[in-house]
Amino acid sequence: MQIHEFQEMMKRLYFHRDSERGVEGTYKWLVDEVEELWEALQGNDKEAAEKEFADVIAWLASLANITGVDLEKAAVNKYPGRCPKCQQSPCQCTF
Amino acid sequence: MQIHEFQEMMKRLYFHRDSERGVEGTYKWLVDEVEELWEALQGNDKEAAEKEFADVIAWLASLANITGVDLEKAAVNKYPGRCPKCQQSPCQCTF
Repeated sequence: MQIHEFQEMMKRLYFHRDSERGVEGTYKWLVDEVEELWEALQGNDKEAAEKEFADVIAWLASLANITGVDLEKAAVNKYPGRCPKCQQSPCQCTF
Repeated sequence: MQIHEFQEMMKRLYFHRDSERGVEGTYKWLVDEVEELWEALQGNDKEAAEKEFADVIAWLASLANITGVDLEKAAVNKYPGRCPKCQQSPCQCTF
């Protein structure tokens, strides 16, 4: 599934709730999901970790929807197949 | 670009660095990027916000790479076109 399609699906499912909640509330949900991902990674339950990865990308897409950002375009613009700092693939940054 | 393709690109660019840094260090970078996203959203600079959205999905993909998770599969499994809680599209959850 394309990043764009996933973001559109999130919009179809949740835009009415996300836009009511607003940017700050939606960002806080994203932060909560990132924390839950860490908790899941501490355990030895791959399925739980996968669900938290799904939730992080889902809330990131929700936040992009209510801030008018095209997540796929943003991702490909910054990472067009090479490192944005050293311009190499693989990255050859020395820091 | 498919979520899977983006994750593969991140693997090609950064797996050597991500795997050396390890899960905890890579998770910390993800958290930093999430914080930078918030800072960017406070300003009125859409381009800056787009770059931070890109960084969050990039570090999420890096973390998925070093934990052996297929981000696209995880996302589609949890969000197969309907809300995982109420099973509706759009979501009809009442809480």
